[in-house]
Amino acid sequence: MRVTTDRGSPSFVPPEERIATFDQDGTLWVEHPIYTQVMFVLEGVPALVKAKPELAKVAPYSTVLELLKGDRAAMEKLTEPDLFKLLAATSTGMSVDTFSAEAKKWIAEAKHPRWKKSYTELTYLPMQEVLKYMRANGYKTYIVTGGGQDFVRAYSEATYGIPVEQVIGTAGGLTYGYGKDGKPFMTKEPKLLINDNNAGKPESIHMEIGRRPYAAFGNSTGDRQMLEYTKAGDGARLSMIVLHDDAQREYAYGPAQGLPESKVGTFTQALYDEAKKDGWFVISMKNDWKRIFSFDQ
Amino acid sequence: MRVTTDRGSPSFVPPEERIATFDQDGTLWVEHPIYTQVMFVLEGVPALVKAKPELAKVAPYSTVLELLKGDRAAMEKLTEPDLFKLLAATSTGMSVDTFSAEAKKWIAEAKHPRWKKSYTELTYLPMQEVLKYMRANGYKTYIVTGGGQDFVRAYSEATYGIPVEQVIGTAGGLTYGYGKDGKPFMTKEPKLLINDNNAGKPESIHMEIGRRPYAAFGNSTGDRQMLEYTKAGDGARLSMIVLHDDAQREYAYGPAQGLPESKVGTFTQALYDEAKKDGWFVISMKNDWKRIFSFDQ
Repeated sequence: MRVTTDRGSPSFVPPEERIATFDQDGTLWVEHPIYTQVMFVLEGVPALVKAKPELAKVAPYSTVLELLKGDRAAMEKLTEPDLFKLLAATSTGMSVDTFSAEAKKWIAEAKHPRWKKSYTELTYLPMQEVLKYMRANGYKTYIVTGGGQDFVRAYSEATYGIPVEQVIGTAGGLTYGYGKDGKPFMTKEPKLLINDNNAGKPESIHMEIGRRPYAAFGNSTGDRQMLEYTKAGDGARLSMIVLHDDAQREYAYGPAQGLPESKVGTFTQALYDEAKKDGWFVISMKNDWKRIFSFDQ
Repeated sequence: MRVTTDRGSPSFVPPEERIATFDQDGTLWVEHPIYTQVMFVLEGVPALVKAKPELAKVAPYSTVLELLKGDRAAMEKLTEPDLFKLLAATSTGMSVDTFSAEAKKWIAEAKHPRWKKSYTELTYLPMQEVLKYMRANGYKTYIVTGGGQDFVRAYSEATYGIPVEQVIGTAGGLTYGYGKDGKPFMTKEPKLLINDNNAGKPESIHMEIGRRPYAAFGNSTGDRQMLEYTKAGDGARLSMIVLHDDAQREYAYGPAQGLPESKVGTFTQALYDEAKKDGWFVISMKNDWKRIFSFDQ
């Protein structure tokens, strides 16, 4: 850090160029057994069914109702197109303000199935410290997430101290229209505009920031290009990747280093090898983090 | 202004929500007789022809060569598809870093045909004062332009004190690839991703900022939705629109208020009427601005 903030250092970085980008799911907070936003979508289904009772017998809505009753196996039945359909049904066709209010309400009430705590309490303490440390050194901290930009903005300031304009994520199209009162409003459309995963991450960083980060943090194959792009810049650049290898205090998944396979937050051996070869820091949750959560002893 | 910055005011706006958005062409700097970025594209044609001499006899390249020799009538021959073709040829198919370097070089050397001054000297002094005044009151100032985001970023900080991450504009797709040295780079593609005009302005404001502005500044029909959306928010909101009615010191065009028609920066009577009805401030360059440019006496 000092090499980029000491004016006398050959690697000094002017304050306006100090950008640090953070993946969210699995990097700043827990992403298992399933992404928080997917839980938001699934838990939004009962309200849909209440409004349109005929949906109760139609897949994928019926599958979600079983799942919410505790049938964990039902999750396996949900395909990716099913999830898009559910996302469109619960998170589009409404104004951006209505969506934001619903996301805020849900995140304030929802609990993680394992810890029975708010999802926003399940942020990683060491990463919260990194966020604060970067900011204390003049770095502007951004979230660059494969999750929905509007969803993450609903809690980013309160949870991470990151203002909404520093949240970059997957985004759908909007349409501009007028209400009966003549006032304009924008409606969320079920049309993908920015897929903020893989190469989409450096692309959206260029689009929404316009500067290459000096530091980037991730945990899965979806972060590979962001970490490569950051590390490939001139001067002192930092790429860090979190390895979930602590089944006891959190979760263990890879399949890097012989850890169990996982569809959620996949960290392949190829990515691990690239990290080692390119000089990224690999963080072992098990060995490097004394406390994982702020509520840990 | 005071009503939004005094803590005791019922219209107080917390600092993090103080967002002001500015159109660029015709609002912050001169856009006649032709948008600056179009001049950049046209003046890039000789280098293209030098690299591929066979283009010299092919339209629209041949038309541009005539135009650059002083044949003003040749401009009329260029259609919108021609301009897109020229934009693609001069501004895509290269890395984002190469484009940025070329745009910076051009803007440092190019001169406006009327004043024989750099385009960056042709910013409006009263608007520069507004930018500074807003920032002095804790407002974050953004450019929201129909022009190319990467083009405007090449000079936004030096010209307006607006950092690149606060420049929102029309943006094309990117592709992520690797050079022979294995280092990743991004290439600009001739594919429109964000058209930052009309409804595209509030949409991109939502996407890249995520907050409704408290103040917005424009000058043409392309700014209508941004000005409507800003003014429609709760509390004290300011929408301002510049009317170019000073043929002597700058240019006069509308067709609002009987001013001459113009394809560049059209300000219709309907827009003027909406401004008056909705309580936007209409700025008359002729009557309201004592000095237009910093070099004026």
